[in-house]
This record gives sequence, structure tokens and C-alpha cells, in this order.
Amino acid sequence: METNILEFDTVALEFAQGESGASRPVLKIIDQTKLPGKVEFLSLTELEEIYEAIYLLKVRGAPAIGVAAAISMYVIANSIDTRDFVEFEAGFSAAKERLASARPTAVNLFWALDRMAKIVQNNRGQGVEAVKALLKDEAVKIRDEDVAACRKIGEFGLTLIKDGDGILTHCNAGQLATVKYGTALAPVHLGCERGFNFKVYTDETRPLLQGARLSAFELCAAGVDTTVICDNMASQVMKKGWVQAVFVGCDRMAANGDACNKIGTSGLAILAKHYGIPFYVCLPVSTVDMKIKTGADIVIEERNPSEVTEMWYNERMAPAGVKVFNPAFDVTDHQLITAVVTEKGIIRPPYAEGLRNILG
Amino acid sequence: METNILEFDTVALEFAQGESGASRPVLKIIDQTKLPGKVEFLSLTELEEIYEAIYLLKVRGAPAIGVAAAISMYVIANSIDTRDFVEFEAGFSAAKERLASARPTAVNLFWALDRMAKIVQNNRGQGVEAVKALLKDEAVKIRDEDVAACRKIGEFGLTLIKDGDGILTHCNAGQLATVKYGTALAPVHLGCERGFNFKVYTDETRPLLQGARLSAFELCAAGVDTTVICDNMASQVMKKGWVQAVFVGCDRMAANGDACNKIGTSGLAILAKHYGIPFYVCLPVSTVDMKIKTGADIVIEERNPSEVTEMWYNERMAPAGVKVFNPAFDVTDHQLITAVVTEKGIIRPPYAEGLRNILG
Repeated sequence: METNILEFDTVALEFAQGESGASRPVLKIIDQTKLPGKVEFLSLTELEEIYEAIYLLKVRGAPAIGVAAAISMYVIANSIDTRDFVEFEAGFSAAKERLASARPTAVNLFWALDRMAKIVQNNRGQGVEAVKALLKDEAVKIRDEDVAACRKIGEFGLTLIKDGDGILTHCNAGQLATVKYGTALAPVHLGCERGFNFKVYTDETRPLLQGARLSAFELCAAGVDTTVICDNMASQVMKKGWVQAVFVGCDRMAANGDACNKIGTSGLAILAKHYGIPFYVCLPVSTVDMKIKTGADIVIEERNPSEVTEMWYNERMAPAGVKVFNPAFDVTDHQLITAVVTEKGIIRPPYAEGLRNILG
Repeated sequence: METNILEFDTVALEFAQGESGASRPVLKIIDQTKLPGKVEFLSLTELEEIYEAIYLLKVRGAPAIGVAAAISMYVIANSIDTRDFVEFEAGFSAAKERLASARPTAVNLFWALDRMAKIVQNNRGQGVEAVKALLKDEAVKIRDEDVAACRKIGEFGLTLIKDGDGILTHCNAGQLATVKYGTALAPVHLGCERGFNFKVYTDETRPLLQGARLSAFELCAAGVDTTVICDNMASQVMKKGWVQAVFVGCDRMAANGDACNKIGTSGLAILAKHYGIPFYVCLPVSTVDMKIKTGADIVIEERNPSEVTEMWYNERMAPAGVKVFNPAFDVTDHQLITAVVTEKGIIRPPYAEGLRNILG
């Protein structure tokens, strides 16, 4: 029987029998680099394998990375074998720094690591074992908050569309980018549960094909009418009148509402504006970085050229020696965004004020 | 030693020794489905192998298809072994209809076939052998006109840019889409010969990757500073200020200036307008179809879903059963076009008038 990934959390804290027979915590994830061909779960405990899982996008999506980082810090902390708090904290901090360097753009990574670090800082008097227990509670809390936030985002998002609508999405901001439901795809999943019929167009999202591989996979699993298009076909699909709304996720939002998301999002927002189609950005408030004034200050990760010219392919798809520009993200100007959908409600322009009110 | 494809015509009429020892005409093309991995030439004489070469994009690009069709009609006519004109004309017409069905969008295919057919129609009194000789002359003329037109397009296009400019292009409207020079890339090739340094950004152009495979290949061969990007990165490259002009080709232009070209072109035009970057469409006048009033009347070829989900890849890149929309072209509204560059000069809006003047 086929595995229905919608029945599994994308990121989970589980407990496994160690060699000594004692139960130990592990980070359990679906290996997203293997989808859609294979559904494979990974149980990770070591810092370097977790770093690699984030760096290589085995786990990806800003909210999912945040939850994975939180669980990882508990898993790693648990294996620091000392009762000396200074030694424990040094090990914890080193691991935190290492994970923080895995990907520079998604703010949820730093946000989750900081929340976990605060547990250590604020409980120095408690002893190592007590702090480990508190770290577990915090990781579970971050996980639970993500599920609740995504469900809320789905509820609010659902008020923006109606049965039968065509929805265009980019990359994967679905269940696979969170623990459950997703952000941009939460309204679709919730609507689907309630018997709504949406037609979803998913950009394949080069170079890593998260749209074709992941969004299409989870939408088909949910029974949604799903059509994969190449990124450069979005204009034609919009022109045909097939799209009533664009829903995308977000990796980091600046205080003015500028939204950093998967490369190609800004182009899609410009097209949506041209064709008069509403453009919605969906995110938990943990993705808003009030320390960043505008999108111009967000560090954009540039990835290996081989992702464009070689990865996935039977052979190299561009001549040897050609240059490649491979930014993983771009920034969509807040003026192109119709509304921002968060678990605390829908924010309309002016975003600076709306975000301040919600985060204040 | 590596083959420098710029030293070869993309499409050529050659003569080969047949089995009988007699020289017979062949259509010689570079097999573009093998690039950039392998430079392989094909010598074709049979109708069905020529049909397949066009259908499978072994030869592609509106002007190149036109020249290939003209040469093919001579090659095929030459092998119709009869002195009976009615029989000859029936064979000729059947072959023409077959080739015309290979691809529905590029007008140059029909235009070239019609020119060749007119030679037959207008010379019924001349006998089969004489008509075969006239067909050869017409095919060579169509080929020569293409080379001259592309060179002229290059000259006119070059007046629109200056040394050091960043140029963005889509798909391949270069030498590989014509006999020599190209249309959209003719200004770059000519400028390169004159010592200009352009920086060219080429969209990889999914699903068939003509930008990464073909444009990058011929530009690198010419020594041009070339950067491959995924289609969804164009917005980011423009935002960074790296692009001073967009140059694209055209597969069919309506009488009002609406331009049908490789899928993704319309999106690029919308982005260029947003960022205030001039958007130039380059084409020989044979690509203008005055019988078509607006782009809405152009038939857009839809191709096999497997091009998006399977072709090139090690494994299937989207879940089984997902729908795919795979249009090969889209129509760019004439209002988004800064100027149309033809061998007869640069046309500015209003295009209906400008095109009428040039074609009248």
C-alpha cells in the first residue's frame, strides 16, 4: 500500500530505543529530496546529519525548518553527556551556531534556535537534566504552535476564495513545508476537507522543482485537481482567466511587508498585478523579522550552479564553462501584495502598521 | 578538436553521393536535441525523417524551420521519380501537407512551403525537370534571404544597445534558430565581431531548455560573457539593474504587432515593463502574418506532458496522475513591445501602421 504523507507530520519528535536499551529522542523527517519517487523517513540524532538535512533540503520550508531546528536542539542537548552546566551550555551553543549556518535566509531557523537558547539562558540555576526537560517542552510547544498557526492561516485564507476557484502557487508552502496543513496551501487543504473543489496550478519551481515534486505530490494525495506548469507558463495561465488568486509562502518578511520567498515569487507578483489577480502571502508571525526594515536588507542565499545545470539530469544541460546565477530567493515588494495572511488574522496595507499591531 | 558550430550553417542544402553514384540533394542540419553534449550533423532526404526532425525539434526556430522546409521540398521533389507533371504535383502537395502539419505555430513553415508550392503552380508548362531546377533556386534564395535578413536585423538591433550592456534573452533566437547570426542574438553576434562586450543572461527556457542548451552554447562559442538563469530568476536579474534590454525572437506576429513566441515571453515582457527595461522583438518580415489580426487568433501548440515531467530527467519529476499544461508558445501583447526589429528597419508603435508600411 502506498504511504499517504498527509497522515504523517513532516517533522516530528520521536523516541527510539538506543543501543543501551534506553529510550532517546530523535528528529524524524520525511526526506523531501526523494519525493515524489520514494517516501522515505529519516531518524536523525547527530548534529552533522541534521545540518546536512537542512543544507541539502531534506527538510525545507521556513516553518518546517524552524520546528526541525527546535527539535534538533533538544535531541542534541539530550546527548550532551555532562552535569556541568558551563560545559553543557558550551556544547549547546556550538551546536546552535552550526545549525544557524545551514541556511541564511529563512528567519524561522534563527527564531527557533533563539527560543531554545533562551530556555538554557533563563534556567541556569536548574541543573542540566531539568533544562533538558524544559528544552523538550519548548520543542513540543514550537511544534504545536506551528500546527495551530497553519490551521488558523488556512481558516483565514479560506475566507479569501470560493468553491471552484483556480489558485496558483509557487514552490511548496504546503504540509511539506510545515508540520501539518502548510501556509499557502492550508486554505486548499482545509477547503478540501470541507468538500470545496479548487483547481490548483503549481509552478514546477526550478531549479529544485519543489512545486512539481512536493506541492503536486501532497495536493494529489489530498485529491485536489492539480496541474503542474513550468514557471514560465504562469503568465499564460493567468491570461486564460484560470487563476482567481495566487497564494505563496514566505521565508522572511521585513517590517514594511516586503516578502522574501522562493526565487520567482517576485515575478509572479508582478504578473498577478498586471492581470489584476489578488496576490496573497501566507506565513506564521514567526516569519516576520521586525529587525529588518525592508527587503533590501535580507541576505539572499546563492546556491551551487550545478543545481541549475546538472542536478536531476541525465547529463549536463548547459555548456561547460558558462556562468550560472542561482539565487534561492527573491524579495517581493510589499506594494505588490494584496494581503498577508497570518494565524492572527489578515493584514492589509499599510503593512508596516498592520505588522506592528499584530506583533506588538 | 571541438567543433565550433558558428562555423557551420544551422540548416544547409548539400549534395551527397547516392548509391547509384549520382549526386543527390540532402537537407543537412545540426541535431539540436543533442546539444550541448554532442555536435552531430544529420543528412536527411526522406519525408518522414524530415517531418520527425521538425516535430522533435532537431531543427527549430521559426526562420530555421522555414529554410529547412524550403530545402526539404526541393530534396523531396527531386526524388519524385516521374515525368508526369500531374503525378509530380500530387506527390509534391502531399509532402507539403505532411510537413505543414509538423508544427502549427511558426508561420515561417507555411510561408516557405507556400513559396515553394508557388514555383510548382507557376511553372506547370515547364516540365518536371525544369521545375526541380527552379525549386532548387528558390530554396537557395530563401536560405540566402534568411542570412541577409538576420545580418540586417543584427545591424539595426545593434543601434539599440551600447558596449557593456546587459542583455536578457529567452529560448534560442540565435544562429541555431536561423541559418546564421540569429534574430534576437544577431546584434550580440555582430557586436561581438566588432569587439563589443555584452553580458548576456539567458533564461534556461523550460521545458526544452533551449536557453541553457542552445543559446548558452552558441554564445559561449562566440566568446560572449554568458550567464544561464532559471526562467523564474529574470525578475531578480532585472531588479539588480543588470539588464539594459531584453531581446527575443518571434514565431508569428499578428498584423497588430502581437508577438507569438516561446512560452514565457509574455511574462518577460510584463517584467520588463515593470522594471522600465526596453523589450525588443526581432524577426524577419516573413514571420509577420498579416492575415492574422491579433494574437488571439494564433493557434498555440500544446506539447506532450512528458516534456515537463520526464524528459531529460533521471526519473519522473512529478507524481503519477498529475495534470500538466504544456503550451509551447504564448502571445505578448503589442503594447508591451518597445520596438520590433526587422531586416527592413526598426518599427515603433503603432505597429499596425508600421507593419503595413513595411509589408505593403
